[in-house]
Amino acid sequence: MDPSLVKIPPMKNLTVDNITDNVIQINSLCSDPRLKYILERLVSHLHDFARETRLSTDEWMTGLRFLTEVGKICTDVRQEYILLSDILGLSILVDSIDHPKPAGSTEGTVLGPFHTHEAEEMRAGDSMSHDPAGEPLLVVCTLKDTHGNPIENVKIDIWETDSTGHYDVQYAGRDGPDGRCIMRSGKDGVFWFRAITPVPYPIPHDGPVGKLLKLLGRHPYRPSHMHFMFEKEGFDHLITALYLRNDPYETSDAVFGVKDSLVVDIGKAGPEYAAKYGVSEDHPLLTYDFVLVSDEETSELRARNSKEALDKLGRKVKIVNGLPVPDLD
Amino acid sequence: MDPSLVKIPPMKNLTVDNITDNVIQINSLCSDPRLKYILERLVSHLHDFARETRLSTDEWMTGLRFLTEVGKICTDVRQEYILLSDILGLSILVDSIDHPKPAGSTEGTVLGPFHTHEAEEMRAGDSMSHDPAGEPLLVVCTLKDTHGNPIENVKIDIWETDSTGHYDVQYAGRDGPDGRCIMRSGKDGVFWFRAITPVPYPIPHDGPVGKLLKLLGRHPYRPSHMHFMFEKEGFDHLITALYLRNDPYETSDAVFGVKDSLVVDIGKAGPEYAAKYGVSEDHPLLTYDFVLVSDEETSELRARNSKEALDKLGRKVKIVNGLPVPDLD
Repeated sequence: MDPSLVKIPPMKNLTVDNITDNVIQINSLCSDPRLKYILERLVSHLHDFARETRLSTDEWMTGLRFLTEVGKICTDVRQEYILLSDILGLSILVDSIDHPKPAGSTEGTVLGPFHTHEAEEMRAGDSMSHDPAGEPLLVVCTLKDTHGNPIENVKIDIWETDSTGHYDVQYAGRDGPDGRCIMRSGKDGVFWFRAITPVPYPIPHDGPVGKLLKLLGRHPYRPSHMHFMFEKEGFDHLITALYLRNDPYETSDAVFGVKDSLVVDIGKAGPEYAAKYGVSEDHPLLTYDFVLVSDEETSELRARNSKEALDKLGRKVKIVNGLPVPDLD
Repeated sequence: MDPSLVKIPPMKNLTVDNITDNVIQINSLCSDPRLKYILERLVSHLHDFARETRLSTDEWMTGLRFLTEVGKICTDVRQEYILLSDILGLSILVDSIDHPKPAGSTEGTVLGPFHTHEAEEMRAGDSMSHDPAGEPLLVVCTLKDTHGNPIENVKIDIWETDSTGHYDVQYAGRDGPDGRCIMRSGKDGVFWFRAITPVPYPIPHDGPVGKLLKLLGRHPYRPSHMHFMFEKEGFDHLITALYLRNDPYETSDAVFGVKDSLVVDIGKAGPEYAAKYGVSEDHPLLTYDFVLVSDEETSELRARNSKEALDKLGRKVKIVNGLPVPDLD
């Protein structure tokens, strides 16, 4: 690039006090206003972090080596950066910002690093787990909108571990997907399937994120849960999970996912469900009524939350492609 | 880990507003006060960044993918995370915090990603570059303390690119180190060697950092320079570089390294140097007088700067192992 094309004031003699403004200024060459805003906030916080901690060169290098290791251990089936984001509370925060939920709708929670795109489509009543050691569980759910109307033909991703607390992708020699499936809700908004009772398990802790948890004196466990993801045009993408009440890790989830509204009891089928779904009366049963929010409701709520939050920070913003950028006019 | 050993208040129902306090609280299990402080500031800034930008799930995933790619491209001879830190101005900031320089001493600058530990030791007058296309340069320097006394037997690492702007490690089929050496200063504090005249060059921009620079509308060039690193017990480790005056990128260095005190002119040897160092009178000559700071002076200045900066932020600190942690007593 011809240096005469550099249209910024000359930069030299950068110090602890002037470096941030200069980096923001050179990044302001960026033609995408959203990226420019993201980089402006990123650079400000990154630099303030170093200034407030008086970060040493050794600590900086330790940090860069840690980030390198986190990247190196990632594979097609292991996303250590999602794990890192999870244990730092960033994942649940971003989900809360991007997928705000009006009262009465189902709350979202962390995606986690184990969702894949290879699950097989299943029909109502099929079994998503083939682990013979798992405790069989009948799951019967409904899916409605915020006005109480059933929603049909929603694409539903469901995934859980086997009875030892491992997802299929954690086995090197696996034959194909297991403990995961894709279903569609019926006309009445109902979907039902056979699974196994979730168990608590540690997030993968043999890598750099596990080392960090150990240094911090934290355990790597997640309480027993089953993941759900719902997609249908016109509705906000819902990533959530159901947690079992009284799990030993219910109030110390390593990735901060548990919400009271998502905590459930496992009951018994009883005569009605037993007859309808072909199980014994004492068969373990999990039921839940999910409520999806329309895209429209979500974007209104998201925009209102954004405006309130940024007003509080004293930043005049405008919304570009649904996301805030500073309003400089 | 036995969940009964988790000694924190129960955590559930985490929201945009309470997640940060909860993550800080669980991290406060950490027994190392410095790591606890670093994580406290990291989590606060990371979360504020997400809240202020209203980071979307797609942007979050794009960010995690970017960080993964930065890690993946790192090898023994390519450190893309240092590059990323360099172009975000973090590297020069950390150097300024950790290696403050009193007036009259040589300023530090960015290490960059191309220092290696395989350079060969050279004697005074040897040639560190074997690139026949490079313009020969005689370099004659002195090394003194802040009282003007010469410092002998300092370990000096020197590295530069070849005439095409590439470091040795950027060649896949290289035979061994070139364009880099280790020297020791003599009794009079003098060290001298033969090199080639530095040229401007782009930082490696075929990876994720290059893509980011492009998105930001920034060029990847560094002005012509030669790196120096000085180590001797009792003196603060000095990482610096000399920059050629009037380089086209002198005021837009992609990694923010240029300082006026480090900008030099290349002159001609003239009769005195020609006779003393065995070159022709019109041989290009670079001279510089480096001034090292004692460990003691540096730690006093570092502690004073830390205290001032953290007082300004309203944080009461105590110094543990030379670095600040909050003083909670």
